[in-house]
Amino acid sequence: MTTAPWRGFASDNYAGVHPDVLDAIARASSGHEVAYGDDEITARLSDTVKDHFGSRAEVFPVFNGTGANVVSLQAMTKRWEAVVCAASAHVNVDEGGAPEHGAGLKLWTIPTPDGKLTPALIDTQAWGFGDVHRAQPGAVTITQSTELGTLYTADEISAIAEHAHGNGMGLHVDGARLANAAASLGSPFRAFTTDAGVDVVSFGGTKNGIMLGEAVIVLDPDSAPGVDYLRKSSMQLASKMRFISAQLLALFTDDLWLRNAQHSNAMAQLLETRVRAIAGVTVVRPVQANAVFAVLPADVTERLQKQFRFYTWDQVTGEVRWMCSWDTTEDDVETFAAAIAAEFTDS
Amino acid sequence: MTTAPWRGFASDNYAGVHPDVLDAIARASSGHEVAYGDDEITARLSDTVKDHFGSRAEVFPVFNGTGANVVSLQAMTKRWEAVVCAASAHVNVDEGGAPEHGAGLKLWTIPTPDGKLTPALIDTQAWGFGDVHRAQPGAVTITQSTELGTLYTADEISAIAEHAHGNGMGLHVDGARLANAAASLGSPFRAFTTDAGVDVVSFGGTKNGIMLGEAVIVLDPDSAPGVDYLRKSSMQLASKMRFISAQLLALFTDDLWLRNAQHSNAMAQLLETRVRAIAGVTVVRPVQANAVFAVLPADVTERLQKQFRFYTWDQVTGEVRWMCSWDTTEDDVETFAAAIAAEFTDS
Amino acid sequence: MTTAPWRGFASDNYAGVHPDVLDAIARASSGHEVAYGDDEITARLSDTVKDHFGSRAEVFPVFNGTGANVVSLQAMTKRWEAVVCAASAHVNVDEGGAPEHGAGLKLWTIPTPDGKLTPALIDTQAWGFGDVHRAQPGAVTITQSTELGTLYTADEISAIAEHAHGNGMGLHVDGARLANAAASLGSPFRAFTTDAGVDVVSFGGTKNGIMLGEAVIVLDPDSAPGVDYLRKSSMQLASKMRFISAQLLALFTDDLWLRNAQHSNAMAQLLETRVRAIAGVTVVRPVQANAVFAVLPADVTERLQKQFRFYTWDQVTGEVRWMCSWDTTEDDVETFAAAIAAEFTDS
Amino acid sequence: MTTAPWRGFASDNYAGVHPDVLDAIARASSGHEVAYGDDEITARLSDTVKDHFGSRAEVFPVFNGTGANVVSLQAMTKRWEAVVCAASAHVNVDEGGAPEHGAGLKLWTIPTPDGKLTPALIDTQAWGFGDVHRAQPGAVTITQSTELGTLYTADEISAIAEHAHGNGMGLHVDGARLANAAASLGSPFRAFTTDAGVDVVSFGGTKNGIMLGEAVIVLDPDSAPGVDYLRKSSMQLASKMRFISAQLLALFTDDLWLRNAQHSNAMAQLLETRVRAIAGVTVVRPVQANAVFAVLPADVTERLQKQFRFYTWDQVTGEVRWMCSWDTTEDDVETFAAAIAAEFTDS
Repeated sequence: MTTAPWRGFASDNYAGVHPDVLDAIARASSGHEVAYGDDEITARLSDTVKDHFGSRAEVFPVFNGTGANVVSLQAMTKRWEAVVCAASAHVNVDEGGAPEHGAGLKLWTIPTPDGKLTPALIDTQAWGFGDVHRAQPGAVTITQSTELGTLYTADEISAIAEHAHGNGMGLHVDGARLANAAASLGSPFRAFTTDAGVDVVSFGGTKNGIMLGEAVIVLDPDSAPGVDYLRKSSMQLASKMRFISAQLLALFTDDLWLRNAQHSNAMAQLLETRVRAIAGVTVVRPVQANAVFAVLPADVTERLQKQFRFYTWDQVTGEVRWMCSWDTTEDDVETFAAAIAAEFTDS
Repeated sequence: MTTAPWRGFASDNYAGVHPDVLDAIARASSGHEVAYGDDEITARLSDTVKDHFGSRAEVFPVFNGTGANVVSLQAMTKRWEAVVCAASAHVNVDEGGAPEHGAGLKLWTIPTPDGKLTPALIDTQAWGFGDVHRAQPGAVTITQSTELGTLYTADEISAIAEHAHGNGMGLHVDGARLANAAASLGSPFRAFTTDAGVDVVSFGGTKNGIMLGEAVIVLDPDSAPGVDYLRKSSMQLASKMRFISAQLLALFTDDLWLRNAQHSNAMAQLLETRVRAIAGVTVVRPVQANAVFAVLPADVTERLQKQFRFYTWDQVTGEVRWMCSWDTTEDDVETFAAAIAAEFTDS
Repeated sequence: MTTAPWRGFASDNYAGVHPDVLDAIARASSGHEVAYGDDEITARLSDTVKDHFGSRAEVFPVFNGTGANVVSLQAMTKRWEAVVCAASAHVNVDEGGAPEHGAGLKLWTIPTPDGKLTPALIDTQAWGFGDVHRAQPGAVTITQSTELGTLYTADEISAIAEHAHGNGMGLHVDGARLANAAASLGSPFRAFTTDAGVDVVSFGGTKNGIMLGEAVIVLDPDSAPGVDYLRKSSMQLASKMRFISAQLLALFTDDLWLRNAQHSNAMAQLLETRVRAIAGVTVVRPVQANAVFAVLPADVTERLQKQFRFYTWDQVTGEVRWMCSWDTTEDDVETFAAAIAAEFTDS
Repeated sequence: MTTAPWRGFASDNYAGVHPDVLDAIARASSGHEVAYGDDEITARLSDTVKDHFGSRAEVFPVFNGTGANVVSLQAMTKRWEAVVCAASAHVNVDEGGAPEHGAGLKLWTIPTPDGKLTPALIDTQAWGFGDVHRAQPGAVTITQSTELGTLYTADEISAIAEHAHGNGMGLHVDGARLANAAASLGSPFRAFTTDAGVDVVSFGGTKNGIMLGEAVIVLDPDSAPGVDYLRKSSMQLASKMRFISAQLLALFTDDLWLRNAQHSNAMAQLLETRVRAIAGVTVVRPVQANAVFAVLPADVTERLQKQFRFYTWDQVTGEVRWMCSWDTTEDDVETFAAAIAAEFTDS
């Protein structure tokens, strides 16, 4: 018995593993290797990451995005410091309280219209420096591309970095979909991270075609001491690390990361184009990466969800989220768009 | 460029991935699957675990052994409770302080001669019930097979379980090498876990031939509420969980877990036999699983470590640890044993 | 050299200790007493608290309000649960991150117009029950009287309690100024706590005339197990507890708590009356307890703060807070009001 | 109804408050004072502490000894570091797991014969520097005088400080009974703290005649950043701090700390002399501060405990602890000694 292949628009982590990544895993499984990262594959990954993020960049593979975020933010803050983030940030709403529970990190959350922070928005929570009653803002985290499918430009990130640093805070980027951002911006990673003043990145692999693996990439080592220790004490140190490193390395081979991201972004663009043509569906956010957010009638959503998996993002407004992934095909999109259109033409 | 295959005796996590497991990973990567464990492969794993551990058993795949232990022990204790363990326990000495750091868990540690707790040893720390000044002993954790290569019998575990329960404590087993224990005891898992009164098991996969994956197996659901939430808040919830489940399922297919464990145990027996024949080498602990602990002269160790990877366990006594793994061959053992013997015959 | 006596309107914790409380401290210091609460004075406090809050009420004296809140909320939540609160709650903005830092508690914060939660407002964060990705809402905390000087009626609290319980959450009241609330409502404590369905109260003493001391009062012992252990592990267990208990007991003697609270409330009313008469000053919140919030020009505030201590509440709007305390005199108020008035008549 | 005055030998925190301290509290309660330590009395305490501990010393009053220890040790360690201590240390056995629970601190515990660490004993746990699997030893804590009534000489502390610093660890002293140590050594505080290389001290007041209050005294500010923030986030910041500061200041006035400590030490010496003369009682530890540890028959202990409060220290050996306090009288000692003697002469 096998798992019947199907595809939906629920999440980019519903997708499987790219064949190149499976090959890389199999190739990595040859003989013994030193555990916990002292292996040759991890060494090669380390060099590759420096090529992409700059010569000071240090890479620390971890298991998942929550782990990457929590390890990063601990390294960037003192015991008494807090983290400033958008209210919609994954680290706030989708990590089961891991930052608070596992690391004692308070989050200063900020409502935003589009999932994006700005210096002015940051200032609504980043104040009270020196006041012991206020958990001291020690780091800012932004998500690129955001949980709402939007993007920061390199200039926007630079402005945030400058503002954060000017207030003694570091800047972290939750890059679970950093590849989608780079593909959409048409920029190398470093243009909107290292060169924009970002200190630490959670680099995502799982949503971009690998099986399991993310990485903490420290761009400014002075900004985040102890990541190696914190990765261990935060339960994110893989014994057979070569197999995570091999997957991440496969992403960087022949620009697989870019091809996968360009593809999922393009599928989102196609879907947007198709649904914008349907009267009754309103696309409610800019489609800048691989997500389409739209509002449609509740009964339509309900019927569609019986055929295709996707999430209702907001029960009140009827907003839904459609994610495209590296393995979404044009046919998938056309079939889905046709089904949506049929909902409105049939009735 | 490929990784040159080699094998040593440093750790069973230096080994690669069994071909059956690689196949299972590849087969799992077909189309989309619901993330976070709501997939068909995880459902099959769940059934299989019930077959092996009893119908009340619930399985929660996680990333690594530290994660399995810390999730388990949190679920088994109230916020104000502590955990009783051997001083040599992995949870105490080899997890970078994760239980304390990530979960606020105090460990009451107990020196042991052989890595094994007994009811009498447990009593040296499990006291002061009802005294607010003493972090309340809420759970006992034992390791099977132990960090010192020794084994608990089912009767020994039963006695500990009865004693723990009698004092209001749960019993957890760190089973990073549970398969080696089952193989050595010649018992099904449940004989020395569920049937012996164990409440929760950290079930190891990584050291027994898979790439990455362990599981919290709750044998008595009343003893450990909230594992699903704690797995998330402890950063141990895999999005593409089907790939961890598929690996664990592969272990249970055609008794791969047993074959791998029997093999690594047998290789340890062979190594023990060979080195016992060498004057100058003293095997210092019973070889009951896949580890051999021996004392040999420091200069001999130093020379051997230039050819073969293995760890010095105790710098003071000169004790070394030799681990066998699922891929250790008879030839590996004979070559190694010959090299050791040569150290003594040459001089 | 002595401290020169002066009085301002900065905070009710700038005030000294009521003479009756000093007497109680001195009287308590007679001979030896069992430490950590097993003393006769604490036993009497326990009985008195039952008189005021109901026969199931259990009192646990602690050091300060942050301690009372953090101990309470830990007892009311499982390891994986979070706390719903107003964004303006002391527990969120004024405790240096203690709930997150010391107890791993995530706060789901809610903007409010007046510092008060309602069932509808609570629902904006209390959702996602059963979803492991969302830190599970386990308790609601409200402040009575609020940080903005407003009050909940008993009916409003009942409605919140019913709503919280209906969703499996407990209800905690941060009662740093519970006495001011009772005095203003003209109700006994239990009318708007125990009888309204509240589970646990942080009962304030420090702001109402004692030197140092608050108490966790558990109204429904089933809702908050382990307070005795959590008080210790949260560093809130006083060795010479009789001296905290004696102070709290003094508050309950001859209704000192009520007299102090009525007085500070009355002084706030007087101040409100006086400043409402001054053109140029706008009282911006209902004065329902012992705080007056007003907006006045920044330069006026600056000049006044050179003569009288008080805090600017919001730099942007120019809102200031004036607190009255048990020792504020009519003369203090008249002098202050005259000085404010002079700012506007002089120019 | 008043508390009947009585005295026992259970603990130095069973004693009341010295009259001079009560006077200081009353005198401090004059008019308003800025809260949270920005008051004149705390400023004077700060100067006085510099007189006693050196010009770089910074004092942070807190509520209790557990709080002082946990704040100190957090400030001295990075997020991933652990603390080395004697197994008998209060921080390990008597704080309800507060260091682990509230601060995520792992303790590396060391069995000792007399409650005292040495460089050689420290080395049994302070190893593995740079190994991510081992929670990194970041600080050593010793207790002076120890929980077993023994003392470190200044030279012994110097040797430990040098050893700790040489390994990159700070040195903390739990000085709940630092006054008893100074009195016994006949040295000023700084001779065996600042001048011996100690970095941070938990300075005890409660056991030496005050009502409630201890202090974190940072001797080397570079060794312990953020104490002001950590005191708040650890729930140890008193709003009406002047009243804690006034008590500590009273201890330093007219050498009250020294007189109280000399007296309780002398009473312990007297008790030791008396009980050494009783055949059947064995004093089992050096009496170097205000505690006497002795072994006597279980039935004798049981009968004595009906008349006098004291604790059995070890149920197995029959060891008991007798503590003398600032208010123990010669008559108390003679009466108690006579009662003990009577147990042996009567039978």
